[in-house]
Amino acid sequence: MQKKYVIGLDYGTLSGRAVIVDCENGKVLAASVKNYEHGVMSENLPTGAKISGGDWALEAPEDYIDVLITTVKDAVEKAKVSKRDIIGIGLDFTSCTILPVDEKNKPLCSSERFKNEPHAYVKLWKHHGAQPQTDKITRLLEKRGEINNAQYGGKISPELMLPKILQIVEEAPEVYKAADQILEAGDWLTQCMTGSKKRAADLAGYKAMWNQEKGYPPKDFLEELTPLLTNLVEEKLSEDIVMAGESVGNLNKEWAEKLNLMEGIPVAATLIDSHAGIPGSGVVRPEQLMLVVGTSSVMLSPSSKEYFKNGIVSGVKGAIVPEYYVLESGIAAVGDMFGWFVDHMVSEEYAEKAKAEGKNLHVYLTEKASELKPGESGVVALDWWNGNKTPYVDGRLSGVLVGCTLNTKSEEIYRALIEATAFGTRKIVEMYKEANPDIRMIIASGGIAEKNPLFMQIYADVLNCEIRLSATDQTAALGSAIYAAVAAGKANGGYDSVEEAVKNMSHLKEKKYTPIPENVKMYNELFDIYCELIRIFDPNKTSVMSRILHMKQKNEE
Amino acid sequence: MQKKYVIGLDYGTLSGRAVIVDCENGKVLAASVKNYEHGVMSENLPTGAKISGGDWALEAPEDYIDVLITTVKDAVEKAKVSKRDIIGIGLDFTSCTILPVDEKNKPLCSSERFKNEPHAYVKLWKHHGAQPQTDKITRLLEKRGEINNAQYGGKISPELMLPKILQIVEEAPEVYKAADQILEAGDWLTQCMTGSKKRAADLAGYKAMWNQEKGYPPKDFLEELTPLLTNLVEEKLSEDIVMAGESVGNLNKEWAEKLNLMEGIPVAATLIDSHAGIPGSGVVRPEQLMLVVGTSSVMLSPSSKEYFKNGIVSGVKGAIVPEYYVLESGIAAVGDMFGWFVDHMVSEEYAEKAKAEGKNLHVYLTEKASELKPGESGVVALDWWNGNKTPYVDGRLSGVLVGCTLNTKSEEIYRALIEATAFGTRKIVEMYKEANPDIRMIIASGGIAEKNPLFMQIYADVLNCEIRLSATDQTAALGSAIYAAVAAGKANGGYDSVEEAVKNMSHLKEKKYTPIPENVKMYNELFDIYCELIRIFDPNKTSVMSRILHMKQKNEE
Repeated sequence: MQKKYVIGLDYGTLSGRAVIVDCENGKVLAASVKNYEHGVMSENLPTGAKISGGDWALEAPEDYIDVLITTVKDAVEKAKVSKRDIIGIGLDFTSCTILPVDEKNKPLCSSERFKNEPHAYVKLWKHHGAQPQTDKITRLLEKRGEINNAQYGGKISPELMLPKILQIVEEAPEVYKAADQILEAGDWLTQCMTGSKKRAADLAGYKAMWNQEKGYPPKDFLEELTPLLTNLVEEKLSEDIVMAGESVGNLNKEWAEKLNLMEGIPVAATLIDSHAGIPGSGVVRPEQLMLVVGTSSVMLSPSSKEYFKNGIVSGVKGAIVPEYYVLESGIAAVGDMFGWFVDHMVSEEYAEKAKAEGKNLHVYLTEKASELKPGESGVVALDWWNGNKTPYVDGRLSGVLVGCTLNTKSEEIYRALIEATAFGTRKIVEMYKEANPDIRMIIASGGIAEKNPLFMQIYADVLNCEIRLSATDQTAALGSAIYAAVAAGKANGGYDSVEEAVKNMSHLKEKKYTPIPENVKMYNELFDIYCELIRIFDPNKTSVMSRILHMKQKNEE
Repeated sequence: MQKKYVIGLDYGTLSGRAVIVDCENGKVLAASVKNYEHGVMSENLPTGAKISGGDWALEAPEDYIDVLITTVKDAVEKAKVSKRDIIGIGLDFTSCTILPVDEKNKPLCSSERFKNEPHAYVKLWKHHGAQPQTDKITRLLEKRGEINNAQYGGKISPELMLPKILQIVEEAPEVYKAADQILEAGDWLTQCMTGSKKRAADLAGYKAMWNQEKGYPPKDFLEELTPLLTNLVEEKLSEDIVMAGESVGNLNKEWAEKLNLMEGIPVAATLIDSHAGIPGSGVVRPEQLMLVVGTSSVMLSPSSKEYFKNGIVSGVKGAIVPEYYVLESGIAAVGDMFGWFVDHMVSEEYAEKAKAEGKNLHVYLTEKASELKPGESGVVALDWWNGNKTPYVDGRLSGVLVGCTLNTKSEEIYRALIEATAFGTRKIVEMYKEANPDIRMIIASGGIAEKNPLFMQIYADVLNCEIRLSATDQTAALGSAIYAAVAAGKANGGYDSVEEAVKNMSHLKEKKYTPIPENVKMYNELFDIYCELIRIFDPNKTSVMSRILHMKQKNEE
């Protein structure tokens, strides 16, 4: 039988990639990556116009189109496969990453009218400008006695869709009014390629408070939030939701030409980038936990029970893995925090030594940090450099470093930061176990997991759990390809179920990270200290952290 | 009448200086400075032998002799005065900085037998290797119900003389046995120059638990500490104590030749370096507080009442300023902490920019920090990089940084560290006011006070108190010269009292730092946050800080 192939697209924070995957065995034949030309914009728009608010993170949608066309064509060419044998396209995207578009699906920021209006651009997942709106939603939910309602996922994160939309309607009502839809960038791309208005269950369920029984939040709630949003659902969203592995529609003529693919092949529903990695790394059972460690980190575990508390959500049943909810939370800054550290907090001396040894600073610091023992430096950190998701769900919280002396070295702080993210992960996993006590195997992926063995060993020691790595370093792209194979179906050379596709297309590396007993012991003690720091800096009490926030706000007024 | 001159010598942590001063008006005619050749030794002795313990800080006594001869001859030559008109020598030294010597006053470390023995060298004031001994002394005082006894100054600091001697006798009993005396380096130099065995009241009173009524700690206390120290006072110390401004003895022939001065001129009793600055900056009344800001900082204020609590001591009445006690405490690391920051925590990018602008990194960071408003960055620090003196008297405590985000810049942390030392100072001044409510004028000196206006403005704002600067940047050396003039006496061209000498020889700069009302208000709030951090990290409770210490100790075992 003729080999068949699928395309998996993976849109991250700074770049997008396309892979060409063999449907039979999941082999990645070719990949192509491209950075977003404008990157993350926090100070200026592409026109040069100023972005005035703090904590903003915008992107330019034209960059996504550019990545789509360039990487697909490049990957197909490299893979040397015939376009006739490519049977489907799957896509994952960061989320909640939203933009307003007109009735022709054109982003409002590409119009003359709105090209200098920050609110017309893409709000990236990590845009934290909507904190006041987040607080407003939280207060309303509290007032309505619905703060623990599963639909809203407990306390509201500024990274969800509703706070971001509320920020647009409050700060740029003309943008809101001009928008035909406000939608996830991941849905926007599948809509462009197919002409369909369908949206993905995974995006809607995890980030837009949608579920199969109740749909989006009710009209009375939205109206109480602000009368401007009363008709949000009918006017700006779409209730035509498709589950993971289903097709949004077929590739239209315009895009078949642009991408040089066959018209009519299915385009699968978009998944959140980290979720696509779940089938991509073979996670389909409750005893497995998927840990993605990149700029931020995400922990995902299929669970029979729902769980909505302290920033942990379990989404829509079956939206990622058939028959299961999937528990999700994470650390808001991991790679980002180490990037910050290396950019700001490492001496010229180290920079020069690293250069002389031909190493980048991360490699240099990791080597030095590897020589330290747990607890030796006396430095303990709270990893809240980009706020905290679990347990406090507050993007304004900030990081803490305890234990600095005149002898403290950069690598000691670097290691303490790694440990802090591991402790934060353990805290989350311990909460997951309330819903899903079966977790006993961690499958890791993401840039840091691939590149940094010290990181993974510390995680194994802190979590006291074996860690395996996904065989591919492109789990999300592979996952997107798996969903594409399922959307294509067995009759066309794909599969009829996610389980079957995962079984054939996903694999693990041989390498295992096994907990080292004496480190586990030391880290149990350090974890207790970390938990004490979590309690001390609880922003819900009149504590240092809330007083610092108060001071900062006063200064901004 | 023929002009008369005195020599003031000032021995700091890294260098020593000599000044030639006009007795009539305090004018400094010439100065000469020299670094200690071996600097502070924490890893290797001059022989290359390893220093095994952590937190050690040793020096080589030959460096002090070298400074004495070189700087005195150089300064006299530059001043172009006749040695016949030089009527006295005064000296100040860091303290408690001790060394063991043989019966000829030769340092034991200069012998073949002990040249590779770290305990035979000078233990610098900031040597923190004697923390276990400090704890032992504290436990004994608690057991005896004497922990609040004024003689011992409340909780014991590892920087005092007794913990350092106890460390020698416990870890190198053969050094202790071989020592004819264990003495302050400041007393050692005056003894060398005069052949006298007298010691200075200021050193003995502040650092060796001596006072005029009771002398050194009693034999039964020392014996209970360890039988090895039963005869410490008779065998290794001297009870022949002289007050400030009095003469230890006259310059002997050997040293008159070495220094090219007249034989027989008086050598005044040594003062602690920071104490010499008291007359040097004109502080002689209870409404004045002297603030010295250098590698560490010291706050000194004449007081009618004694005060011994939380690491604050008030010493021996009249040992520095006639008729008064002098309240003393300080911050264990100020310049040292900023040195650490600049050495380890500033990016290559900043280092290059500073270089391009021809500025050192302190100047560069200070300029950037000057543009920030109080509280704006959200970063708050606890300044315990070298432990804490007040209120906890624990050299093992460590620094804390709260409020880091992905947007935090080096200058924000730099400013937070400045503010933290100001808050620490305010905490101390507030305790001083329990004994001496009259404080209302601060006279600052020291390298940082001279060089960094931002520092001084933040201190004025945080303390809500006008700050003046001493007219000279060599207050300690000037103070030493003032004591020399008093030791010489009016009949020889000096003065008969410290007050009279201060009135004529000490002056203030015109420049005043006045509190800025809106900053005062913001800093009142930030100070509350700082005080909350002090409580949170109280090592006496089962807290994060004590658990971190416990982890570190385990690792060292």
